[in-house]
Order: sequence, then structure tokens, then C-alpha cells
Amino acid sequence: MNRQWWYIALPDGKLGIEHFAFKSVPVPEPGAGEFLVRHLALSMMPGNRAWMQRKTYRDELAPGQVMPGRAIGRVVKSRSDHIREGDFVETQLGWQDYAVACPSEVIVRDKAKPVEHLLGILGSSGTTGYLGLFHVGRPRAGETLLISAAAGGIGSIVSQLGKIAGCRVVGIAGGPEKCRWITEVIGCDEAVDYKAPDLAGQIRRACPAGIDLFYDNTGGPILETVLGEIKDGGRIVCCGNTAEYDSKVPEAGPKGLPLSLIVKNLTMSGFTQMRFTKEKIEAHENLWRWYEQGKLKAYYHVMHGLEQAPAALIGMMRGENRGIVQVIVADGTN
Amino acid sequence: MNRQWWYIALPDGKLGIEHFAFKSVPVPEPGAGEFLVRHLALSMMPGNRAWMQRKTYRDELAPGQVMPGRAIGRVVKSRSDHIREGDFVETQLGWQDYAVACPSEVIVRDKAKPVEHLLGILGSSGTTGYLGLFHVGRPRAGETLLISAAAGGIGSIVSQLGKIAGCRVVGIAGGPEKCRWITEVIGCDEAVDYKAPDLAGQIRRACPAGIDLFYDNTGGPILETVLGEIKDGGRIVCCGNTAEYDSKVPEAGPKGLPLSLIVKNLTMSGFTQMRFTKEKIEAHENLWRWYEQGKLKAYYHVMHGLEQAPAALIGMMRGENRGIVQVIVADGTN
Repeated sequence: MNRQWWYIALPDGKLGIEHFAFKSVPVPEPGAGEFLVRHLALSMMPGNRAWMQRKTYRDELAPGQVMPGRAIGRVVKSRSDHIREGDFVETQLGWQDYAVACPSEVIVRDKAKPVEHLLGILGSSGTTGYLGLFHVGRPRAGETLLISAAAGGIGSIVSQLGKIAGCRVVGIAGGPEKCRWITEVIGCDEAVDYKAPDLAGQIRRACPAGIDLFYDNTGGPILETVLGEIKDGGRIVCCGNTAEYDSKVPEAGPKGLPLSLIVKNLTMSGFTQMRFTKEKIEAHENLWRWYEQGKLKAYYHVMHGLEQAPAALIGMMRGENRGIVQVIVADGTN
Repeated sequence: MNRQWWYIALPDGKLGIEHFAFKSVPVPEPGAGEFLVRHLALSMMPGNRAWMQRKTYRDELAPGQVMPGRAIGRVVKSRSDHIREGDFVETQLGWQDYAVACPSEVIVRDKAKPVEHLLGILGSSGTTGYLGLFHVGRPRAGETLLISAAAGGIGSIVSQLGKIAGCRVVGIAGGPEKCRWITEVIGCDEAVDYKAPDLAGQIRRACPAGIDLFYDNTGGPILETVLGEIKDGGRIVCCGNTAEYDSKVPEAGPKGLPLSLIVKNLTMSGFTQMRFTKEKIEAHENLWRWYEQGKLKAYYHVMHGLEQAPAALIGMMRGENRGIVQVIVADGTN
């Protein structure tokens, strides 16, 4: 049987288990030109929640379908000339054990690499962090790089890449435990706790030379505060807006936009990793090399079993994870 | 005597004549190293109103002082070794007939040029429009350039510069008369009336190939609408935020920021002309050359007499002007 998590109801506020239903259906048969994928692991990202809320880079997700999302799977039956049994593929086919796909729906991945890394440092979070930092933010050695959600999937990667780039790296995270983790484990030079009082003052003290580059994963009140603190001529990389994803209605934007951009000569650049093509090859090469050299560490928040998929996403929206969240669906050697 | 307009009260809502007082004081005497300037003309810009509302690129303006602002004046008495009697200087010393200054407070301007142009196409509006378009927006021939407040001081310059750059130029203005003016006189290819219904639909119809570059002078609801319409990869030059200047409290920013930047790979770049130095020389050379060649026309909304200064600014905030607003204080040959 093919176990599936369906997205069944639009959240009125915060995402909960009641917005999903677990079903079992027969394993589908690939048609001509198609193949059957056994999902091995799912990647969780805040965007999964944003899809429910509004049109993003894809149409708003309508309830009544298998929850989509990035997964790595192994091809177990193929009627395609291009994809062979045993190939590792990345799909967007979401929270289910099996899925039928055609070649244009998947990306063939390197099966010599561990599945966890294909969804981790070589997955969406690693790639997005690399592209956003190096190809959008373009840090220079000696600059002060501030990162929001620095303990999250992308933030924990960008924090490490910022050190590789020679920056002074200051991470924003929620609570003393995460703040300790991003300094002692991840390697941030300083941590700022957005749940503690006086975020602006904390940022000023942690960034005595001012903020050159802000890598923003949250938007919302944190972005609003940083707009007041960033130095003249500063750059902001808009990577995520998680502060606003887990609610019914998108809020108004941070106060003072666009005026703060004007008076401080700021640039805000948003991006999705889909806009890059050849740069992804460079990203994967460098990320893997730095990992093998020990300069980049892989921190994964791993949950086991397809049953855990909703809990993994709900927990991520509550900020319960550290590092990249993955759900292991099946043994990679299956 | 020296007539002066004082800024005397913080506006609680819209700016009115009651926020200013007219005074007459003795003409001041320059001290050692100083000189006396006879103001000839004042330049009005929306920023004058923004200064009252909040800290911008300068500290918030406190009531109880001569209203500051850009002016062109003629040096009538000098005790400076650097500035001579008869020199034309640009000051920030505002709404008064005379002011004492020291050399570091002024910029010496070319007295062979008419005063109106020194405050016009070669003044803040012309320079800002040039720098924002060519050095921030960087238009390419064939691109669609959308401009808000296209009938305003900066907008009417940028519209013409956009045509010189080979763009398809679409201007946003308020009301059928201004829309006719920006197409028939200024040379926009299309006009969009933000006071008429369905701004988004009007923009879509006027920009069938999509918007590559948005030169924004207003922020607020117009920016919010354009964020929904601009094409993937589009650029936004944030030059002004006039939608929010004439009120007591700055509003929340446009909805959907920063998410719309992320999902559409947009860049928003704010700037002030103060950040540029050597580029201003190029700006003035090109602006003057294009003016002499007839490619760039000078459209000034001129009011006569220092008495008119508050009315000029209040009228500009109501959108009553077309082109660059100037107040003539004295004859240039005085």
C-alpha cells in the first residue's frame, strides 16, 4: 500500500494536525514513459506552510490533495528510457511512500551521496543558503553579516558560509539555548535573542561596526527592527518571510518601507533558488568540498517515519528545530 | 530687512499655512570667513514635508526655526577667501531672503546658467532623477519603465530620460488632465490614472510585455499594487515615499513585503542623491547636453515671491503641480 498525508483543510490560524489526513491507497502503476519512485526522505521547509496561505512562486495550495514537498526517492520500477531502476531522484511529489513521475518532474541526483545530504547541505536549504549569500548578498571579508533564524535550516548554513567568506557573523535566534547553539556549535561570533528585551539594543551591541549585510529569513518585526539598525548603504537578502507564514491573512509589511531604503541607500533583494541554474552546480561543488574539508558541518533535525511529517512541519513553524528538518520515510538501501 | 518663513508647529495631519509664520528680522552680517547670500530662488520637494514627520537622512525637523530647504543665491558680501561677491551658490538655508553661510555649507554653481535650471534640470530633481534612473535602475533599451508621480518634479524628468534610454515609458499620474500632460507633453508612451478604478488592470493593459523597472516616487498603495504586477526579476528604484509624508504617523509598509520580493526575485533599491559624488558631474553634463539638444525639456511650476513658499509646498503635497516646483525670491540680476 501507498501511505499518504493529504492536506485537507485551510488553516484559519496556526497549522495543526487537523489540517492533514493519513490515507492508504494502492501503490500506483507507472504508465508508458513513467516510473515509480519509492520516497526515502522528505525535506521540510517553511515555504510548505506559505503555499497554503497565498500564491507564492506557485499557485495557492488548495485543500484536497497529497501534501506536496521536496523528497528524495529511489526508482523502483521504470517504463522510461531516461530514468533507470535504482536511480536516485528528487521530486516535489510530497508526503507519500510512492509516487509515479515522468522524467520532466524530477531531477536525477547522485546516488553515491547519502540521502540526508542530498536533502541537506546539497538540498534546498544548503543550495538556497549558498546562492542567497554568495550570488545575491555577495559578502566581502571583514563585513558584518547579520542572519535571522540563524538556528534554522537555511540560517545554520548561511552562518557557517559567512565565516568561510571571512565575515563577522551575528545570528538572531529565539531563546538562550538556540543562541548558545549558534555560537558554540555553528560558529557565529555573536548571538542575539529576539525573544529577550531590546532587540535593537542587542543588535547594536553585537554589531559595533554596523551591519553591512542582513540575510533575512523571517521578515516581519525582526526585519522592521533591522531596517532601523542597518548601516547606510547596507544590503538585505530577502530569503524567507516565516514571521508571516503561519497565519490566515498576510500582514502589512514592516513599517517605514520604502522610506528607510531611500534615506539609508539600502538594497533589498529577494530571490528563490529556482532562478539560478548553472550557479547550482558551483554551489553543490563548493558545499560538498567544504563539507569534506570539515569547514561546513551538517546539522540535521531528523524525524523518523512518514507518520511524523505533519509534526515535523508544525514543529518547524513553532521554531522547535535546529538545523535542516528531514523526515526519513524508508531506508536508503531499500 | 530679511523676510523669513519659520516652521512653527508640527502638523497633526496635512500640512497647512498654520504651521508657518512670516517674520522680518535685520539682515545678518557675515563674520570672519563667512559671506552673505541673497536667495534668488527656492526649490520645493516632498522631502521638505517628510523632514517634519520623522528622522530621514537628517534629524527630524523641530518646530521653531527658519524652514530649511534648497536655494540658489548670489553672494552679496564676502569675508571669505574662497567665495567671492557675485558667486552663485546653492544653500540648504531655506525660506528667507538672506542668509549668512560659510564655504563648507554651500556648493558653488555655474553663474552662467539660468537660476531656474540650477534649481531645475541641474538641481535636485534633475540630478536625483538622472542618478536614480541610470545609476540605480540601469535601464536597458526596449525595457518597460513604469514611473509613479510621473507628472511631478522628478517623475517628469525620469519619464523623459527613460525615452532617451530607449525604454517604453508608462507614467502613473492622478487625473485625466495630468495623464494627458505626461503623454502629450512629456512624452510617456502610456499613462495610468491612479485616481481612476482598477489601477492593477490599467497597469497590465499599459504594460503588455510586463514591467521591467519601476521608478517609484510614492510608495504606499501604488507600490503595493505594482509589487503585484511587476514581472519576475524586476527592479524597483525607491526614490520617494510621498504617499506617506503628509500625515502625522508613518503607516505600515505595503502588504506582502518582503514575500513578493522573494517569490518574484525582485530587487528594491533606495537611494538619495547625496550618496553620489563624481556621478553628479556626469549627470549635469548629460542633462545639460540633452537640454541643449532639445531631447530634454524643462517643465517648471514657478511661483513668484517668498510669500508663496508655504503655498508652494502645501500645493505640491496636494499634487497641484506639474514638473519641478520653484519659488522665485528675487531677480537673478539683483
